[in-house]
Amino acid sequence: MPRVSQEHSEARRQQILVGARRCFSTNGFHATSMQDLLNEIGLSAGAFYRYFPGKEELIRTIATEALEEVTDRLAGHLQQHDAPLSELLASLPTAPISALHDPDLARLIIQVWAEAMRDDELSVVVRAGLDRLTALLEAELTLRRERGELPADADPAACARVVLAALQGFLLQRAAFRADEPELFAAGFSVMFRA
Amino acid sequence: MPRVSQEHSEARRQQILVGARRCFSTNGFHATSMQDLLNEIGLSAGAFYRYFPGKEELIRTIATEALEEVTDRLAGHLQQHDAPLSELLASLPTAPISALHDPDLARLIIQVWAEAMRDDELSVVVRAGLDRLTALLEAELTLRRERGELPADADPAACARVVLAALQGFLLQRAAFRADEPELFAAGFSVMFRA
Repeated sequence: MPRVSQEHSEARRQQILVGARRCFSTNGFHATSMQDLLNEIGLSAGAFYRYFPGKEELIRTIATEALEEVTDRLAGHLQQHDAPLSELLASLPTAPISALHDPDLARLIIQVWAEAMRDDELSVVVRAGLDRLTALLEAELTLRRERGELPADADPAACARVVLAALQGFLLQRAAFRADEPELFAAGFSVMFRA
Repeated sequence: MPRVSQEHSEARRQQILVGARRCFSTNGFHATSMQDLLNEIGLSAGAFYRYFPGKEELIRTIATEALEEVTDRLAGHLQQHDAPLSELLASLPTAPISALHDPDLARLIIQVWAEAMRDDELSVVVRAGLDRLTALLEAELTLRRERGELPADADPAACARVVLAALQGFLLQRAAFRADEPELFAAGFSVMFRA
């Protein structure tokens, strides 16, 4: 494929993804029809189907890209952060690592979770993302345990999954329960896992 | 209202709620039409509307009752449980306090969360439930802090919200990510909040 055409193709793909994220985060996956999507994106059905076979494939691509972004950001945050464990934990609810600071993305992610219950392929995508995030945090917590910052009897993999679960719950409480209290979460996180 | 009629009325109401929970947990709120609901419940539209003005009101009632059940169960669990804090925390992911042991109810609850992002009245219902659960756990953690089981500088309200968030994340990882590892969560919970 010539380069100009590749660039054009990538621009179209991004145009579809951006418009779809906007539609889905406002109205949800099910209340968004293909026609709503095409109107928002500003493309014909023919042009759309050249890039995605359908709405399901689009949702999976959006979920995959969002998870990759979260993973990259968490990796970057952990790499930069050499403070004591209590500070590192306290920083997670307010760090720019995830959808926590983007209400549209948070709404989208909660819909991805709900959809993953019905869509086995999507469930595999989110599970793989969870495993990557767990591995990142587990490596950090293993290191912290060696330094004596985590209780000697703590299982870093178990602690990593609990931290991720608490972050998921925080995102949920914020977006769905309108309980937007990052400082409260930072305080709770700061006293988790004391050696 | 005569007593027989009251009993009949309550039985009908339960018939509707049970059928609706079944429909919603399998197909979701949006993919379930009023006709699907009526077919599952085995009632006419006229009979249905005598009890609920519509699908939204039905969803709110189901969410309210599910939250009341979780709250009652958590209260009972805390009252019975006088073990050390690490054991109490470790018991939460496997205790029969919530939807954790009922996959249908777990699926329903995750849909309630997604729906609460769009339905402000439902968001108020789930927020009130979260506040009651937080108050219960906060009272227990305050007591534990007085006993020296929680770090002296820990905020019991903050710790309560983090525990609830982690339980929500656990439920989610189980139902949507197919990551069903209660023992891992119990291990992680057992080392949270050491004094």
